[in-house]
This record gives sequence, C-alpha cells and structure tokens, in this order.
Amino acid sequence: MFDSLHRRIRKKGLPPGTVAYVGPEQSAQVAIELIHADAGGVRHDRAASPEDCLKAAQTPGLTWINVDGLHDPACVTRLGELFHLHPLVLEDIVHTGQRPKLDELDSALFAVLKMLRYNEDARTIADEQVSFVLMPGVLLTFQEKGGGDVFGEVRKRLVSGTGKLAKSGPDYLLYALVDAMVDNYFVVLERMGEDIEEVEEALLSAPSPRDIATIHGLRREALFLRRFVWPLREVLARLEKLGPPLVEDATVLYLRDLYDHTIQVMDTVETFRDMLSGMLDLYLSNASLKLNETMKVLTMISTIFIPLSFLASLYGMNFRHMPELETAYGYYVVLAVMALTVAGMVLFFRRKGWLGSSASGADGGAEGDRDGG
Amino acid sequence: MFDSLHRRIRKKGLPPGTVAYVGPEQSAQVAIELIHADAGGVRHDRAASPEDCLKAAQTPGLTWINVDGLHDPACVTRLGELFHLHPLVLEDIVHTGQRPKLDELDSALFAVLKMLRYNEDARTIADEQVSFVLMPGVLLTFQEKGGGDVFGEVRKRLVSGTGKLAKSGPDYLLYALVDAMVDNYFVVLERMGEDIEEVEEALLSAPSPRDIATIHGLRREALFLRRFVWPLREVLARLEKLGPPLVEDATVLYLRDLYDHTIQVMDTVETFRDMLSGMLDLYLSNASLKLNETMKVLTMISTIFIPLSFLASLYGMNFRHMPELETAYGYYVVLAVMALTVAGMVLFFRRKGWLGSSASGADGGAEGDRDGG
Amino acid sequence: MFDSLHRRIRKKGLPPGTVAYVGPEQSAQVAIELIHADAGGVRHDRAASPEDCLKAAQTPGLTWINVDGLHDPACVTRLGELFHLHPLVLEDIVHTGQRPKLDELDSALFAVLKMLRYNEDARTIADEQVSFVLMPGVLLTFQEKGGGDVFGEVRKRLVSGTGKLAKSGPDYLLYALVDAMVDNYFVVLERMGEDIEEVEEALLSAPSPRDIATIHGLRREALFLRRFVWPLREVLARLEKLGPPLVEDATVLYLRDLYDHTIQVMDTVETFRDMLSGMLDLYLSNASLKLNETMKVLTMISTIFIPLSFLASLYGMNFRHMPELETAYGYYVVLAVMALTVAGMVLFFRRKGWLGSSASGADGGAEGDRDGG
Amino acid sequence: MFDSLHRRIRKKGLPPGTVAYVGPEQSAQVAIELIHADAGGVRHDRAASPEDCLKAAQTPGLTWINVDGLHDPACVTRLGELFHLHPLVLEDIVHTGQRPKLDELDSALFAVLKMLRYNEDARTIADEQVSFVLMPGVLLTFQEKGGGDVFGEVRKRLVSGTGKLAKSGPDYLLYALVDAMVDNYFVVLERMGEDIEEVEEALLSAPSPRDIATIHGLRREALFLRRFVWPLREVLARLEKLGPPLVEDATVLYLRDLYDHTIQVMDTVETFRDMLSGMLDLYLSNASLKLNETMKVLTMISTIFIPLSFLASLYGMNFRHMPELETAYGYYVVLAVMALTVAGMVLFFRRKGWLGSSASGADGGAEGDRDGG
Amino acid sequence: MFDSLHRRIRKKGLPPGTVAYVGPEQSAQVAIELIHADAGGVRHDRAASPEDCLKAAQTPGLTWINVDGLHDPACVTRLGELFHLHPLVLEDIVHTGQRPKLDELDSALFAVLKMLRYNEDARTIADEQVSFVLMPGVLLTFQEKGGGDVFGEVRKRLVSGTGKLAKSGPDYLLYALVDAMVDNYFVVLERMGEDIEEVEEALLSAPSPRDIATIHGLRREALFLRRFVWPLREVLARLEKLGPPLVEDATVLYLRDLYDHTIQVMDTVETFRDMLSGMLDLYLSNASLKLNETMKVLTMISTIFIPLSFLASLYGMNFRHMPELETAYGYYVVLAVMALTVAGMVLFFRRKGWLGSSASGADGGAEGDRDGG
Repeated sequence: MFDSLHRRIRKKGLPPGTVAYVGPEQSAQVAIELIHADAGGVRHDRAASPEDCLKAAQTPGLTWINVDGLHDPACVTRLGELFHLHPLVLEDIVHTGQRPKLDELDSALFAVLKMLRYNEDARTIADEQVSFVLMPGVLLTFQEKGGGDVFGEVRKRLVSGTGKLAKSGPDYLLYALVDAMVDNYFVVLERMGEDIEEVEEALLSAPSPRDIATIHGLRREALFLRRFVWPLREVLARLEKLGPPLVEDATVLYLRDLYDHTIQVMDTVETFRDMLSGMLDLYLSNASLKLNETMKVLTMISTIFIPLSFLASLYGMNFRHMPELETAYGYYVVLAVMALTVAGMVLFFRRKGWLGSSASGADGGAEGDRDGG
Repeated sequence: MFDSLHRRIRKKGLPPGTVAYVGPEQSAQVAIELIHADAGGVRHDRAASPEDCLKAAQTPGLTWINVDGLHDPACVTRLGELFHLHPLVLEDIVHTGQRPKLDELDSALFAVLKMLRYNEDARTIADEQVSFVLMPGVLLTFQEKGGGDVFGEVRKRLVSGTGKLAKSGPDYLLYALVDAMVDNYFVVLERMGEDIEEVEEALLSAPSPRDIATIHGLRREALFLRRFVWPLREVLARLEKLGPPLVEDATVLYLRDLYDHTIQVMDTVETFRDMLSGMLDLYLSNASLKLNETMKVLTMISTIFIPLSFLASLYGMNFRHMPELETAYGYYVVLAVMALTVAGMVLFFRRKGWLGSSASGADGGAEGDRDGG
Repeated sequence: MFDSLHRRIRKKGLPPGTVAYVGPEQSAQVAIELIHADAGGVRHDRAASPEDCLKAAQTPGLTWINVDGLHDPACVTRLGELFHLHPLVLEDIVHTGQRPKLDELDSALFAVLKMLRYNEDARTIADEQVSFVLMPGVLLTFQEKGGGDVFGEVRKRLVSGTGKLAKSGPDYLLYALVDAMVDNYFVVLERMGEDIEEVEEALLSAPSPRDIATIHGLRREALFLRRFVWPLREVLARLEKLGPPLVEDATVLYLRDLYDHTIQVMDTVETFRDMLSGMLDLYLSNASLKLNETMKVLTMISTIFIPLSFLASLYGMNFRHMPELETAYGYYVVLAVMALTVAGMVLFFRRKGWLGSSASGADGGAEGDRDGG
Repeated sequence: MFDSLHRRIRKKGLPPGTVAYVGPEQSAQVAIELIHADAGGVRHDRAASPEDCLKAAQTPGLTWINVDGLHDPACVTRLGELFHLHPLVLEDIVHTGQRPKLDELDSALFAVLKMLRYNEDARTIADEQVSFVLMPGVLLTFQEKGGGDVFGEVRKRLVSGTGKLAKSGPDYLLYALVDAMVDNYFVVLERMGEDIEEVEEALLSAPSPRDIATIHGLRREALFLRRFVWPLREVLARLEKLGPPLVEDATVLYLRDLYDHTIQVMDTVETFRDMLSGMLDLYLSNASLKLNETMKVLTMISTIFIPLSFLASLYGMNFRHMPELETAYGYYVVLAVMALTVAGMVLFFRRKGWLGSSASGADGGAEGDRDGG
Repeated sequence: MFDSLHRRIRKKGLPPGTVAYVGPEQSAQVAIELIHADAGGVRHDRAASPEDCLKAAQTPGLTWINVDGLHDPACVTRLGELFHLHPLVLEDIVHTGQRPKLDELDSALFAVLKMLRYNEDARTIADEQVSFVLMPGVLLTFQEKGGGDVFGEVRKRLVSGTGKLAKSGPDYLLYALVDAMVDNYFVVLERMGEDIEEVEEALLSAPSPRDIATIHGLRREALFLRRFVWPLREVLARLEKLGPPLVEDATVLYLRDLYDHTIQVMDTVETFRDMLSGMLDLYLSNASLKLNETMKVLTMISTIFIPLSFLASLYGMNFRHMPELETAYGYYVVLAVMALTVAGMVLFFRRKGWLGSSASGADGGAEGDRDGG
C-alpha cells in the first residue's frame, strides 16, 4: 500500500518527463518480446531490439511488443523515441506507482493497469503495473517485473495463428490481455472469499485473537483491491466509448462484456467489505454475550458463598463471651441458616432468569447453532 | 455468494465466446419447450428440437422457446446458430455467474436476470439464472436448472389462448415472465420479514447467541439480495426507455409498473438492512445494561460482606494478648459495628441510586416493556 | 411495515390489471362522495352512484369524486369503466401496498400518496393509501379506509363556495388536498419529536431498558416515515414541472410551496434519525462510564480488604509453634501493619486518580450536568 | 429544533396564503425602517409608514425597507398590498418556520434566510428568520424579532453615503446584508470550535460524564447548523446564476465570493461533525482501556490472595486430628508454600505482560501523552 | 484547523474588498522576487519593487513575480493597482483563511492553493496559503509566509535558462509550481503512512493509551488534509478544461498528469481514513478479547477457592458441639471433599472450553500472530 508512495517520493525534484526507474532493484535482463502476425504467418521473437520492433510495426499486420522489466531506462527511452511517445507517457510507464488510468494521445491510447498476484503465504496481494500503448496496427505493453505474467493463454492463441486473435487488430489483442488480467482478479477474489468463509466459521464456533487479526488483514487487502478496481472500471467505461479508428466497432461488444466483469469484481469487493464489517460486529456481540455469561457465574458464586463465609468467620471469633457457641444446637442452627440463605439466593437468581438461561442458553444456544446453522 | 466466483474461475484460460457449462452437474435431460400462438390457436410442445423452434419462429404469431437446463452446450450452441446469436451472448447464457444486465444487440435484446428460491430449512436464498433473448415475434428463455420455475401461471394463461398474453407480442410475454419473477421476490422478502420480526421479538425479551447468528445470517442474505436487485432496477429502467420496434408503446406502461415494483423490492431490502443494523445496536445496548446490573449486584454483595468478614477474621486471630477478646461486651460491640457498617453501605448505595433502580429498574423496566411495547 | 408485503403476496398469480382488494376486511359500506361546483353554486352528495358522478363530470365546473373504502371492487371497476381508466391504474388503486408515485397517462394524471395517522397508545404510525386521478375538470380520490380523513377543512371551504377553491380547477383542489395531508405529516412529526425529547432527557438523567426499546421503536417509525416521504418529494417535484393543460401556471407557485414543505418533512425525518443514532451513542458512553465507576468501587474494596483478611486468617491458624502469637505486642504490630497497608492502598488509588474523580466525578458531574445542561 | 415544527402546526387548517403570525408573543412595537439613497443624498427614517415606503420606492435611487418584528400581520399585509406581493410570499414571511430558500417571482426575487445568534450561557444556537424581497430599485427585508441584528456595519456604510453601497443597486445591498449574516456564521462556528477543542483536551486528560453530555449537545447544534447551511448554499448558487435584470453582472463576482464563504461554513460544520464522532470513539476506547486496567488490578490481587487466604483458613480449622499443626516447622513450611505461590503468580502475570504494562503502560502512557501530544 | 476561523473573524465588519492582513505577526521583511526570461537570457532579482515588476511584465518574455509574506498590505495593494487586480482578489490573497479555489477573471486566472509542511515534532501538518494570478506572459504568486518554500527546484531550472521552463509560457510555470506543491503532498502522506504503520504494529502487539491518542491525532490530520485536497482536485479539473488563451494546449497534457496525481493524493487520504477507522475497531476487539480473558481467570480462581475457603471457615467455627471435629478422619474427609470440588470445577471449565482456549488461545494466538502476521 505504501509502495506507491515510496516510489513517488524518489522522483521528487526531477523535472516532469524524466524517465527514472523507481521500483526495487532487479537482476534479470530487460527483454523485449516481439510478435508479428500477418497473412503470411506469425513471427515470435523473444529478444528483439527496439529497431526490430519499429521495422515490424511498419510492416502491415498486427504487432505486439511486450517489454518485460522497466529497470533499464535506456531501453524504454529508445522505444519512446522510435514510436514518438510523449515524455510524460514514458515517465508514467517507468514510474510504477500510478493509479489505473486511460489517456487519449494524438494518435494513440495510453492505459495503465494493475496485474495482481496473490501471495499464498503472507495472505497479501501484490500488484504489478502493466502499461499499454495502442497505436494503429501496434500494441506496446510494458510490464513492471520480468518473470511471469497472466498472458500465457493469449500468447499461445496468438502465436498459433488460428482463431480470432491473429486476424483482428491490436484493439482486440488489448481486450484479450485485459480480459486475462481481469479473469485473474477473480482468482484473487476467490482466494479472499475462501479466507473470509473460513474466518466466519471460526468466529461462529470459537473466536481467537488470530481471527481478528485476519479480519483486519482482509479488510486492508479489500481496501487495496478497491483502489485498483474503481479506476479500472472508469478506464473500461471510457475505452468502450472511444470508437474508431483505434477501437473497432466489432471490439466494442467484447469491451462491454469485459466492463460487466469489472462491475462484478467491484461488486464482490464491496460485498467483501460489507461482510468483513458484519463479522466484526458478530465478534463483538459474541464477546459481549460471553462476558455477560462469565460475570453471571462469578456473581452467583460470590453472592452465595461470601455471606456464608462471613457467617462461618463470625463464629470463628475468639471472644470469651459468645453465648451461641455454648448452646447445644448452635452449630445446627447456623447450618440451617446457611442452607436457607443458599435457597433464597437460588430463588433470586431463578427469578432474574440467570439460572436457566445461563446454562441452557450458553450451551444449548451454541449447540443449536451448530445444528441449525 | 461464492458460487459465481467458482463458476467464473473454471472458465479461466478459454478464449472469449467459448460455450462451456460451469454449473454443478445435473442428471435431468435438457428440454426445449415450444409455445406458438397465432390466430389459429396455440401449440404447446414440451420436447421440441432446435429445428422445430426455428420453423415455429418463422411462422407469423408469437413464439416462446424455453430451454430448461444448460448442461448440454451442444443444444445451446445449435439454437445460437439457428437464431444467429453472438458467441458472447451464448457464453453469458451458459456461464451462469452473471450479474443481471441488459445488452442491446443488432436486432435483438439480451437480458440476464435471477430467479430466487427460498430454502425454508437453511434459511438461505438460492438463485437461478434466467436469460432472455427478445427478437421480433420470438422470445427465447434459458433457465439454469430444470425442474420447476415461477412461470406456471403465465404458461397457463398463454396456453389457454384467451386473455391479453396470446394476442400480444413477445415484449408483453417478457414483461409477464419478469413480473412473475419479481412477484416471487416479494414472497422471499416476506419470509425474511417474518424471520426479522421473530428475532426482534426475541431480542426484546430474552436474547440468545442463536439470535445473533440469525441476525448475521439475515444480513448476509440481505446483502445477497441487494446484489441482484440493484442491477435488476437498472435493467428495467433501460427496458422501459427502449421503445419500438422491440418494445411496443402499449407495453411501456406495464414495464413502468414493473419498475415501480422493483423499486419497492429495493426499498424493502434497504429497510431490512437498516432494521438489522438497528437490532444489533439494540442487542449491544441491552447486553451492556445487563452487565451493569450484574456488576452492581456483585459489587454490593462484595462491598458489604468483605469488610465484615475481615472484622470477623480479625477477632479470630489467636494472639495471646488481645484485650478486646476478654471484655464481657466485646462480641456485642463488634456485632453493633457490623450492623452500622451494613447500614452505612446501604445508605451509600441508595445515594448512588443503585438500590432502587437496580431492583425496580431491571424488573419493572422489563415488565413495563412487555406491557407497553 | 410488513403490511405492504402481505398485501402484495395475496395478488400473486393473478394476471396484471386484475382489480382485487387485498387489505383487511371492512364492515362499513363503500361510499362515493360527490361535490360539484360551478357558477350556479355547489352541490354536495354524500352517497352518489357512479353514474351520477359521470353526469356531474360532464357538466362544466369543478367535480370532486371521493371514494371512501376500496373493499367493493365492483364500485371501483364501474367508475373505471365510466371514466376510461387503464386496468393497471385500477389495480394500483385497489392494491394498497403501493409506494407513493405519479404516473402520466394519456389525458390524466394518476398519483398514489399516503395519509398518516399517529396511534397515541401504541406510539406507531399507521398509513392509509389515497389515490388521485386528475382529469380535465374532474378530480377522483380513492381512500383505502372509510371513517375519517384529513380533508375536513378543504371540504368545508369548497362546499362554502366562497374563496379560491370553488373558483379554481381540479389541480388547485389536488394541491389543497395534498397540502392538508402534508400538514398532517407535521403533526405526526411533532408527536415523534416530543417522544424523542422525552427519551433524551431520560437518558441524560436515569436511563432504563424501556428507553432503549423506545429509541429502537422510534428509529423504526422514522424508517417507516422515510419510505413514504422520499417518493412523495419526487412526486411533487415532477408535478410542479408538468404544466398545462392538467396543471395550470397559477397553481405551480402553490405546488412549489408544497414541495418546500415536503423538503422540510424529509429534513426533519433525517434529523430525527441522526438524533436517535446519537442518543444510542450517548447511552452506551454513559453505560460504559458507570461500569467503570462500579468496577473501581469493587476493585478498591477488594484490594484493600482481601490482603487484610489474609493477614487476619494467617494469625488465625492453629499451629502449635507460631512464635508471633506468644509475643506481648504481636496483636498491635499486626494492627499497625494493617493500617499501613490501608494507607498505602489509599495513596496508590489517589495516584491513579480513582479516589477524587470517583466520588466527585460521578456525583459532581451528574449534578453539574443538571445545573449546566 | 422543534420550534419550526410547533410553528408549522399552529397554522394547520387555515387556507394557504393566510398571513398569521405563529412565533412567540413579543411586546416591542413593529417598526419599519426606511433608507433611501440617491444622487441627492441619503434619507434614514426609523419609523416609516408603509405609504412612506411606497413613495420612496417610486422615487429613483436605492430604497431599503427593513421591517423589525412580524407580530403585526396588518403591517405586513399592508406592505404586501402596496408592493403587490403574492399571498404565499406574505405567508412565508410571517410563517417563520421556513427552510432557507429562493423563489423567483414574476418581477421580484424572494429569499428566506436564517440569522444565527450564539447563546453563551446555554451553549445553544438560536435562529431568526430574515426574508428578502428584491425588486427593481427596492429591497425589502423582514426580520422575525426586533431588537438587534447583524446589519449594523452595513447600515452605517449605507447611511454614510460614501463607498460602493449607496451607489449600487439593491442587489449589491442584498449581497452586503447576506455577507454580514454569513460572517456572523463564522463567529458562531468559532465559538463551537473553542468548545470542541476544550472538550477534546478534557477527554485526553480526564473524561467526565459532563464531557459526554457536552459532546452530545455540540452534535445536536452541528445538526442544527447543517439544516440551515445546506439550503443556504443552494440559495447562493442559484442567486449567482440569475443574472440581469435583478442581479447585475458586477455583483456576480461578489456573490461568488460569498458562495465560497458558504462552502467554507459547510465544510467546517461537516468537519465538526466528523471530529465529534471521532471524539466519542476516543472516549470509548479510553474507557475500555481503563476498564481493562482496573480489571487487571482486581484480578491480580484476587488471584494472589484468595489461594493464600484459603491456605490460612485451612490451618485455622479446629479438627482434633490435624497432624501438620503439631509439627515444629509446620508454620514455616506453610509460610514458604505461600511465598512460592506468590512468586509463581508474579511469574505468571509477568509472562502475560500484565505487570510491566499495567504499571508503566497506564501511568507512563498517560505521562508520555502529555509530553508528546 | 481553527486558524482559518480565527482569521476570518478578524475581518468582520470591514466592507468587502478591504485588504487587511489577518495572519500572525511576522518580523521578516516582505520581499518581491522577480524572474524574467526571454530570448536574451534570464534576470533574477530577489528584492524588486512593484514598479520593476510592471516594467518587466511589459517586456516580452516570461515574468514570474513572487511575493514572500503578506503582512505589508501596502505592497500587495500597490501590485494590485499596477496589475489592475479586482479588490476582492486582493482581499482573498491577503486573507489567508481561504479554501483552495479557482476564479476566472476578465483576462486573468486567480487560484488559491495550500502548501503543506509536516511538523516532525508535533506530528501535525501546517498549511501556508499560496495565491496565483495568471495573466498573459506573467505569473504572480503570493506566499503567506516568508522563509522557505517548495519551489527551489523549479526556480533553479528556470534561472538556469535551459530546459522547457524558460521557453514556455506562464501556464507551464504555474503547472511546474503546483506540481512541486503536490509532490510535497506525497512527502507529507508518506510521513503519515509511516506513523500509521507504526501504530498498527503497536496495536497488534501491545496497545497503549498513547496509541489511541496517536490514532485520534492522525484522524484529525487526515480530516485536515482532506479539506484541502478535495477542492484542489476541483481546481485542477477546471484548470485543465480552460484552454487558450491563458492555458495553452501543450500544457493541458501536463495538467491532466497533475490531476491524476491529485486523485492519487485524495485516494491515499481516503484510504488512510478507512485504515484508521479499521484500527480503532481492531483495538476495541482486542481490548474486548483481553477483558474476557482476564475475567475468565478471575472467575476461575474465585469459583474454585471461594467454596473451599467457606468449607475451611466452617470448620474453623468455635461451637462447642461440632461432632465432625472430634472424628479421627474428619480432616481427611474434608480434604477429600475439597479435592473433589476442585476436580468438579475443572471439569466444568473444561466443558465450557475455558481451560484450553484460555491458556493456549491467548498465548498461542498471540504467538501465532507474530509468526504468521
């Protein structure tokens, strides 16, 4: 969550349009992947040079240039020069703390989106910025980190040369890539959903401090997701309305479908937030109920035995002149008084509804819960 | 709630427009029901073939094609080919984790809605996706699960051939079917309303942990309902404004009436949410009040008897030289001091307002409640 | 609150446009009241037939037809036929679980509003549906229940034949009737306001469980009111913008004034909701404060006397060899140790700020409250 | 808060447009103040008659007619006749329970606003309705109560005849008067702000029940203010957009500046509401912390001494055959067991983190707070 | 927060457009800084006179006039006369309690923004008003306080004469200055973010009262920030849409980028607010859990030992006739009864789930938290 702030700070003081990488250091080589598809077939080059890319882009057909890793500004700057990208666009590409957005440039579209990855161990969501530049016949994508993306299926379908992908324009390719990213959001949501269900069950049976920390963590992650999903929805709503020449009419229906999926993601995130709030309420209500039960037990024990102990202590005093001590039946009278006190207290608690409800309410309730829930 | 997520995941990696069933396995046969009404009468075929359907649709008059069950993709695909449906529409029909929506296609309308069913035992709401394709003279409906729907009355009125239904276009039939679905929402809402009233009464008399779990469950179901009702309202608002050729002017008044009903459903769901929140507040306030009462009892007992017990213990010590023990009236003096202490404490508690309010407040209040509430 | 749901359910399965009464059974006769005013004077008929009404409506002048009670569908149906009302309008008139709304028909306006009645004993608000059909020269009103409405003053002014009412069109009469209904909302609000102020004072002095139940009940009623007032505002906003022929320009200023009153009603309902939420917070804060005070008393008493009692018990042991017991000043030494312990504890509590604040804080605060508040 | 409801009720049953005073009785005489400024100089008449006013209004130049007190309906009615005001306008002027609003009449503007007064003793805000009628060359103002307004400075500047006021139209005078009222809102807000800061400091050091009542009272006043400020903003937004002939272009810039001030008032009120909510949370968190500390002290004392007391009581029993009592070192063994028990308990509490945090946490924390905050 | 109120009050009663400084007294001299850049080079004058400024502004090229300190009204008034600024603009410049805003004047733009400074010691945010007047070829800026701003880098780039700044119009300079201010907002946000993370960690391990006060303070600062960021966003949204002549098309892309940054600031502030609310919930849940644990310990100890103590006291009574005391095995029977009681209680607690969960739940949970979190 604070990563984007850190990244932003590092740039402070540099003139706008400076291309300076701000993310963590990376050892892997920056790689440019080039896929060119035309009537003659598909060419796939995993380590192209910027100049190769320009040449391919100037050949008719569909060109996808995918940059893996942003830690080599020279590479990005060179691509920017060759494809005439505005300095601010280059800055936004390299500067990975952006919010998802869509900018209409003179003859190109620039979109920044987030790819999510669920860290199973830490139960946190990691984000990776993916920037898209859509130009006639060409799609450039810039991924923040090398080493794995969610585009495997799309790449396979495109390289195979069969199907709609290789025959359509770069707008359909853009759609297919964003669709893969949004599909992956559902995977992340499902993981979160499983965690939420698990915690909810724990809360209803035996809540522990760990559950509260988990709820808190899940709320943070939901907040985190929300920050990416709301602007994503805006991006798709605007993309759908752009129209030719960059977005063909045939693609609009697909984009609308994608927009519907985004709404569903948003909806789910909001529902998660509502559910997590509800669970804290559930926890607090249960804790308050248990405290009440505990206090009733303590109060009943104390209220019964403290007066009895007093009575016993009274006749344990060592005064020389205590006439009751000398009588033959004193002891039995005291025992009788004690028994009467206990009986009175029990009656009092029964009238208050503590006895029945305390035992049957707490246990029976919990049991009934498991049966009925 | 998580079903739609599960369903979405299964599709991951397939190209868009793939018709793959993602719901639970079903044993029943997929059945196509065909009703054709024209001036010559009404024909009702419970097991029609896709080709029968096309033939009926090409005959003048009103044709309703109702597919029960989606687990046979071949059947849906065949219908899609015959009626020239877009692959994305077919995908959305089969892919049952959709959010209610309305898409305007070139010469057809595509709507996805949810049919609700109240599970009396589990106190949960189950949803079933129903998709509508409205074309000139033809209405196609696709139900997720075979075995029962809420369209019985509409079917009877249409097959009888009398009344407005058989004489109107498919837009009026669409209205009648959605109206039946929305009417059924009211049935679900009434069940929930009964549960809410029942829990509310329990909370005011004797709250138990089971009630908190019920409130929590009802809030979840309200959240669940809300996710279907809000988009439903949007669907109807847009449907009403579409106009000819697909929606005739005469039907608009009916659609507006239906829209009013949807608003009422939404209104009721929101009111339920407000009421359920209010009930948790009520519960917590009552629990806090009871804890205060319990603690007052404990504190009074302890405050009165602990000093007395100390005094008794004091004179139970076995020191050889304790002059008080030897005096003739020591015992009576100690008894008098104890009596004075008790009187002082009682005065102190009365000044604090604990004595009167504790007894009369708690019991009288609860009794008054039953009288007055 | 649940009445409207019950009423809606009963209709389930009937074709749209069916005129079936769904309210509670009523013994009183359905009465049609007819008032006709023209240059020649005013005619007032308390038991007119539908045909009388039509005749009067066809005579120039202002005609008000007021139907008291809806449990005779035949009567409503007959009027509907004579005045050419759409079946859906008739259904909505008879079907009294409607939400306030305004429908523009071909040559008429149809409005559904709610008349409120405050039940002093049960402290609840009862609603009664009043439907208005405004046609050129004619206003039809349908009241759900016979036996009393809030239109007495308007009726008197109209029948007297003097003043603006008898000389204006049916739109001004509609305004006057709705104005009387909204004025009555203020009466209901004032009653609620009195109850709220009463509970607030109780909470600041001595809160009881009855007060929490009252707050809960008032919140429910505020929720109830809100469901009628929000749509009422929409109805009036649209009415004001309709313009001729049905609403004359001269009436618009009056409708705007009425709209302002509705905003004020809404405003007051929202303020009530905010105040009631604030009062629960006030209650919980006070309860938490009192619990803290009680616990301090208990803790101080226990902390002082439990160690002392232990000391006393220690020297009450019957060991043969306990050298302290034999010393001449053992008893006095123990008493001194006890006194020092008490002094130490008192110092500790004073340092914790328990002693001063406990006594003066609780009492002084409450007293200061009464002086200052 | 409930005043406006009371006032509204009193009018119930009267026909719309009736001029009936509904406020509290007032002894002071209703006074009409007339200021007329033209090239020839300024005339100031503190007790003009309605006819004087009309004459002055018909003379070229700027005329301000200010009515102090509304309890003489004849006076208001007479002015209404002379200046051709609509009956509904007169009703709204006299009927002082209005919400701030702006009505555009045929050739005049009618605005209702609220003047606020802070009651230092009761810590409450009192409102006084001021109505404005803006006509070409003339501004009429109607103040609910005689005896003091916030217009002193404006009056002085106007009467002095120098400066912009005397040379501008009535729209600039209207601006100057409303500006004086809004400036006074800031005074009220500053008083509230001081109270809020004071309570906040009290909450952080030593919260008392009086503080909770003060927070509650301040929330009520904030709610009260909010009801006047939101519509005021709407009034100014619409006023700014009206344009000639009633509002000159030169005045628009001033109105926009005034609108900015209103936004600032609104902003401050909302911030106050947020802060007051935050303070209740702060109070509850602190109370919960203190309760935990108190309970730890009680639990530690009880847990240490109750077992010890039991041990002492055990050997205080008077059984004839208790071999331990006879041994020479029994007493010392018991003392050793007791010491070990205490040591064990202390270790247990230290492991639970109660000992260190209890002492240093509570005191050190509070001290650190004062140092650091 | 209350500063702006104080400042506003001081002006009360003065006619609109009065230029009166309302901030705290300042000792430093008011300095006018003049930078003029044209084809011939850059001139930088740190102590220019108003007349110098006018002369420079009338020379072709870019002129930046920066006034440091507003406590000399004469200086501001003189500049206002020379540059024909409206009196209301001068008033807003000097009157530093403004809300961020943008006013379009006849041939100039007037913007008020806030520069933030983070006070590391007090953990509070201080604001300083900066006003911008953009005219053809000229940018005037007015800073509330002398002694340091965030414009150092921009000044250096402009004075160096190389780069885009010296060659662009005053609109780009305006952009660069506001960009520097917004970049500084991120620095403030990062500091807050660090504090939030620190407190969150403390809450999860060992919450103290200091943490609650810190959360409260951070919420106040977030509220404070929010009041400046929301209107800032509006200012930038409107600036971007203004277009020529004052804002050139080439600058619009930069302004849009800046707008995106503002959205990100807003987003972060809202996220902080959500997180801080969530942390109070976390704290309260943890406190409630700990209270429950403490109470269980107390209840278990009391419930076990209070009955045992009673039994011991019973046989410590000094009645002459207590037959049990004389029996040979009485003592052992009592010890056995006590052991059975303890065993029964332990069984009871185990059945209630107190024993296992109390020990392992509290400790194991906290430990697991540290491992897993």
